[in-house]
Amino acid sequence: MNRIEFVAGGVTCPKGFEAAGVSCGIKSQGKDLMLIVAEKPCAVAAVYTKSAVKGAPLTVTAQNILHGRAQAVVCNSGIANCCVEGGVAAAKKMCSLTAKALHIPSEDVIVASTGEIGVPLPMKQIEAGIGEAADTFSKEGGHDAALAILTDDSTPKELAVEFLVGDVPCHIGGMAKGAGMLRPNMATMLCFLTSDVNIHPELLDRALKEAVDQSFHRMALGGSPSPNDMVTILSSGLAGNAKITDLGDGYQSFCQALKMLCLELMKWIAKDSRPGGRLLTCQIHAARTERDALIAAKAVTSCPQVIEALSDGSPCWADIVCAIGGSGANVDGGAMDVSLLSPASGEMVHLCGSCTALFFDPQKARNVLDESEVILHVDCNDGFFDSVSYGCLGPVSRS
Amino acid sequence: MNRIEFVAGGVTCPKGFEAAGVSCGIKSQGKDLMLIVAEKPCAVAAVYTKSAVKGAPLTVTAQNILHGRAQAVVCNSGIANCCVEGGVAAAKKMCSLTAKALHIPSEDVIVASTGEIGVPLPMKQIEAGIGEAADTFSKEGGHDAALAILTDDSTPKELAVEFLVGDVPCHIGGMAKGAGMLRPNMATMLCFLTSDVNIHPELLDRALKEAVDQSFHRMALGGSPSPNDMVTILSSGLAGNAKITDLGDGYQSFCQALKMLCLELMKWIAKDSRPGGRLLTCQIHAARTERDALIAAKAVTSCPQVIEALSDGSPCWADIVCAIGGSGANVDGGAMDVSLLSPASGEMVHLCGSCTALFFDPQKARNVLDESEVILHVDCNDGFFDSVSYGCLGPVSRS
Repeated sequence: MNRIEFVAGGVTCPKGFEAAGVSCGIKSQGKDLMLIVAEKPCAVAAVYTKSAVKGAPLTVTAQNILHGRAQAVVCNSGIANCCVEGGVAAAKKMCSLTAKALHIPSEDVIVASTGEIGVPLPMKQIEAGIGEAADTFSKEGGHDAALAILTDDSTPKELAVEFLVGDVPCHIGGMAKGAGMLRPNMATMLCFLTSDVNIHPELLDRALKEAVDQSFHRMALGGSPSPNDMVTILSSGLAGNAKITDLGDGYQSFCQALKMLCLELMKWIAKDSRPGGRLLTCQIHAARTERDALIAAKAVTSCPQVIEALSDGSPCWADIVCAIGGSGANVDGGAMDVSLLSPASGEMVHLCGSCTALFFDPQKARNVLDESEVILHVDCNDGFFDSVSYGCLGPVSRS
Repeated sequence: MNRIEFVAGGVTCPKGFEAAGVSCGIKSQGKDLMLIVAEKPCAVAAVYTKSAVKGAPLTVTAQNILHGRAQAVVCNSGIANCCVEGGVAAAKKMCSLTAKALHIPSEDVIVASTGEIGVPLPMKQIEAGIGEAADTFSKEGGHDAALAILTDDSTPKELAVEFLVGDVPCHIGGMAKGAGMLRPNMATMLCFLTSDVNIHPELLDRALKEAVDQSFHRMALGGSPSPNDMVTILSSGLAGNAKITDLGDGYQSFCQALKMLCLELMKWIAKDSRPGGRLLTCQIHAARTERDALIAAKAVTSCPQVIEALSDGSPCWADIVCAIGGSGANVDGGAMDVSLLSPASGEMVHLCGSCTALFFDPQKARNVLDESEVILHVDCNDGFFDSVSYGCLGPVSRS
């Protein structure tokens, strides 16, 4: 197996990327506009929200990257530029302002926004912000950029990995902001990735779709997808590896590293979706199809009753069984075994077998539920397919 | 059009039915076991939960009514007899105890339970309760029966209608108990209907399925269906109408009356799903298919963010648009118009047009949102199909 290591930094870790994050007054406080700048045009890929409602920045980005190339990312927080008159023109203006400041074509800019829906962007502030960011971007600016995309998140989220293609060290860096379960509005999930790997754009696209499917698309927090959800990746090719042009070892190494990075960023987002949140993983085993397994898993981590009961220390196996039963997943409604598992201690507590109560030690169950990470394992005893979903438990606040 | 009138009473309103509700100690207080008894074997139909997990009483009832006949209904509240060892045997025992006390065949008994899942039924109490109910059922016992099926409901729910088949007055009576959105457990939705109309059992079945589809299946409160959800109807035929054997006028009159009754009972359940609850109706207009319209409507009334915002007096059109966009319904994400409508005052406030903010008077919107019933009207501008979903707003508690 390939060695993949987490290393310091975020989007400016891979060769060829600099960034900046500035305050331009869209939010009442904190940084609210960021720029990622590549030293040369990059291969690019993106995955957009599954919502039928799409924010103007997504429309413009999708159009821009049609030609398969990008050199900069501009993103503001505070206002989503969604469901508003002139949204597409405003998003295009963000691209052209960025392009002008960086002396690159407007079509080489990826644009994103996150924040309030239905409110027009203050273009004067945006213009000033882009100007300032274009004057200040640097190798050290990744952290500021990660700060500038946040809305309700409690921490900035940035990670980077190093891995080998052949014997050449390559890197992927990323930053993300969070989705919210308990917030009044659906929070936009954004993730910007950079890489220095040399890869054919079609393979970059394929790898990103796979990684997103196995990470961000496995997060189910009970809300709707936001119109502005977006994951993008730019790849500079400056690592110097032999260009990845097929599905061989180099591609596999890249995919593995990308999935690992996306999975960690997604878990971070999930955990941070409520104050003091803890990661909940629901593993579904032995379902009839992979789709049924995923539907069942998501039904559990997105069920408010299950989340509240587990957060409260209650091993609510009946609620879990009912959430799966009512999810639309094709499962045998009398065959499920439900267990609690602590990844920290390895402790496992079997709660029900064949959908029937088992005797278990309530204190043991409570101990597992008090851990900072909790795994729910559901064996459907009904087929050969597994899946997993991630959600968020509230803090342990019991006396 | 046929004249349909609400009349006094519930399940004992139609000719040929008596009932009783008793306390046998399953719940810590209140009545918890009921019996509906028909003076002769009735045509019967039932609709069961959509959950893959099915409570033992449903399995036994489905088996019993295979022969197309029933003469009694027994139901307890407090314990659901679901996800428990020996559940089927316990449900069968409830039937045989009832049958013995009433001197009818065990297969002529419909059995239902609602309450805690994963806990065995206390059969001694059940036996005593059935004995007492069989000794006391009467024409006046309908209200006690309606009380005995409740769990968290704030009020018993019973209604009856009178309508004509030809020129013969016929009746349908019903009682129901509620589904819960904000409760720790999924509350079971139960509805027991009786009628004195003379109708072929296959048409009774068809009419019930149609009525349930257009009433109870339009309620979306954000929880999972319960494993014990059930709607049943017994028809004694004692009204004396010419037997309904085709889809002609008699059948249409019966269907209309049945739908009207089911719709009112469902609205009552929806409204009572949280303390001080108010009825929210989401009408979807001009969607691409009826299925898309229904998915969109349910996404709105079951979205916690939308419900909390509307309850709080906020005309959250962006949340509504996002809930529909993320629902999986095939809609044009840029075409929706959203309006608020008060059925009491007729006041209408247009909140957004083509998914873009409109100027509206916030006080007017607030006035509509403060009514005891609120309608959300969403025009998808995208096709020819409409649908509707019902949900529950919290009380108006703002200063």
